[in-house]
Amino acid sequence: MTKRIITISREFGSGGRFIGEEVAKKLGIAYYDKNIINEIAEKSGLSPEYIQENAELSPKKGLFAYAFAGRDVTGKSVEDLVYEAQRKVILELAEKESCVIIGRNADYILKDRDDVLNVFIHGDTPEKIQRITRLYNVEEQKAVKMMADIDKRRMANYNFYTNQKWGKADNYTLCLNSSQLGYDRCEKIIMECI
Amino acid sequence: MTKRIITISREFGSGGRFIGEEVAKKLGIAYYDKNIINEIAEKSGLSPEYIQENAELSPKKGLFAYAFAGRDVTGKSVEDLVYEAQRKVILELAEKESCVIIGRNADYILKDRDDVLNVFIHGDTPEKIQRITRLYNVEEQKAVKMMADIDKRRMANYNFYTNQKWGKADNYTLCLNSSQLGYDRCEKIIMECI
Repeated sequence: MTKRIITISREFGSGGRFIGEEVAKKLGIAYYDKNIINEIAEKSGLSPEYIQENAELSPKKGLFAYAFAGRDVTGKSVEDLVYEAQRKVILELAEKESCVIIGRNADYILKDRDDVLNVFIHGDTPEKIQRITRLYNVEEQKAVKMMADIDKRRMANYNFYTNQKWGKADNYTLCLNSSQLGYDRCEKIIMECI
Repeated sequence: MTKRIITISREFGSGGRFIGEEVAKKLGIAYYDKNIINEIAEKSGLSPEYIQENAELSPKKGLFAYAFAGRDVTGKSVEDLVYEAQRKVILELAEKESCVIIGRNADYILKDRDDVLNVFIHGDTPEKIQRITRLYNVEEQKAVKMMADIDKRRMANYNFYTNQKWGKADNYTLCLNSSQLGYDRCEKIIMECI
């Protein structure tokens, strides 16, 4: 089956988002990242600001926060509502057109389709820290903390909603170390698999 | 740094060994797999038959067997002696020439070199089972059991000696799903990274 949708999961600072955007440009297909926040907000009835902060990350409280999140009479927490809205938006996008989708557990959400190439981009710690300090204009110590915090929250969100382990090779078609391979080569490899 | 050594870790039935052998042929470099057993045997003082059965796999007794293995006065078990001999052989091979090395935790053993491309080949269960039934001439049920047993023992050996998790994307430069990408494309991608 030809792959026409690319999902990019990535470690913070690995350049996964950048690589995904370049691939979408070069292939001339749609690119979905923060630009789907408004749609998720509309579907969930929550504010775009809330979605931006929470849709892909576990609550700051920690890894077990989902399990203990406040739930309404249907047993659903606010996190669940956001996730359900996000899931619907991603399923619709995949149905509609060829595209690159960044993060948001799209690999798992689209697991029943066989036209999806699931990519995980990771990197070596020194290179990731360097990239974060540059992009966010922060000191090294702050970059280390951001990296640990965001990856932990992405992982908690993924593991909770998918029952899979974030960053385990088996979940993805292709995993690439962007520090060792370089961004250009990562893009090239992804495009060859389409 | 240019990569001149390729280590291939692989799930049983994923075709990782075949892919590694093809890459070595096409690149015209050495290929090390079962052909290093005699050297490991010589260095460890154990028989080639024993090495063949044990050098890459945990004891059949189960996952915790290493921890409880009988140890001599130096605190070393037979498994440790085998591993130490295997480690020395792999370090020497990497020093000597460009090559492909299959399994044997070579990715971890060579972690201090920066000329090594670490590859993990995995696959989808139906395709792996089909391959095992064909290659080993066994029924499907037997293939499922072989696959589970061998991957479990490889994982136990890897996790015990490396303190890393077998199959976690972060350990490797490149992880490829051979069922989805096809063997030819896996070979091509690996060769592009050299």
